[in-house]
Amino acid sequence: MIKFVTSNEHKYRELNSIFSAHDIEIEWVKMKYEEIQADTTEEISLDSCRKLQSVIEGAFFMEDTGLYISPLKGFPGPYSSYVNSTIGNKGILSLLGVDRRAHFQTVISLSYGRKVYQFSSTLRGTISTEERGENGFGFDPVFIPEGEGFTLAEMDPERKNTISHRRKAAEKLIDFIKTRNELNNE
Amino acid sequence: MIKFVTSNEHKYRELNSIFSAHDIEIEWVKMKYEEIQADTTEEISLDSCRKLQSVIEGAFFMEDTGLYISPLKGFPGPYSSYVNSTIGNKGILSLLGVDRRAHFQTVISLSYGRKVYQFSSTLRGTISTEERGENGFGFDPVFIPEGEGFTLAEMDPERKNTISHRRKAAEKLIDFIKTRNELNNE
Repeated sequence: MIKFVTSNEHKYRELNSIFSAHDIEIEWVKMKYEEIQADTTEEISLDSCRKLQSVIEGAFFMEDTGLYISPLKGFPGPYSSYVNSTIGNKGILSLLGVDRRAHFQTVISLSYGRKVYQFSSTLRGTISTEERGENGFGFDPVFIPEGEGFTLAEMDPERKNTISHRRKAAEKLIDFIKTRNELNNE
Repeated sequence: MIKFVTSNEHKYRELNSIFSAHDIEIEWVKMKYEEIQADTTEEISLDSCRKLQSVIEGAFFMEDTGLYISPLKGFPGPYSSYVNSTIGNKGILSLLGVDRRAHFQTVISLSYGRKVYQFSSTLRGTISTEERGENGFGFDPVFIPEGEGFTLAEMDPERKNTISHRRKAAEKLIDFIKTRNELNNE
């Protein structure tokens, strides 16, 4: 059993379905934790993970996802959650002109044996010109993955999980777990 | 002598001129420090101040200013500096419609005798419909203080210092310093 630390139920559900497909149980530790302000998600996640090591027993991981919009110098990046809850998707749409390139990046930090391991994945795409779709959460209604005709929120959860940054980062973690018997059966 | 910790030369100059007018010398400690992500500037500043107490000897203070835009649920608030360096003033302008109410808030945290004292001040106003003026920094070109016809960046520094949130918070700190002889003459 491995612990997943997040206060976000959407994230827990999405990751739990990915882990279930690999017959790996995860335990939801529902809590908020301290995050520093920094330029990269890796740095913020590493810092939070180290701080939680003194609070949480055994192996645990946390997940952070940011939306990086190219013509906005990466905004909202590490502050995606705050920006989503203030200016929201409508705000993002009003900030953009012709250049709409963007990518999602997921970083998973695993604390295991007092070390921190990071697994990350990126999904490239563009910002749509209007909100579309009811599935998913966050910026999903305005993000169209490269090579797709639909936003992430227009896809059903299975389809989203097939291509998503979150799934790919999770699978890297799952591959790691499978090489560590004691983690797999803990 | 009291230390002022900031990596921002604009802030140092603006505050130094205010302190000089009261014959108080401040020493510029030019460094970046860790800031957490939190909803209020008070909380972020308090946390940073406590962490710096183990690094900096003697009395020191730090200053944080955020722009809180009412129709955007307070955005960019605690992340004003990040938002200014990414989407900038043009981004702010494109986010707004008819309701343009906003306020600046400055929070100064003073570490003195291992305690932390906070002094804050607010300047109410509106966001202009275009960038105007060359003075100041940050969001000054798009902020019109209540009762004024000009943006902060259109005012000369003396005029800005007369009405500014930063000056008012600094004067609260100066009043405090004047009641503590050992701080004043240290």
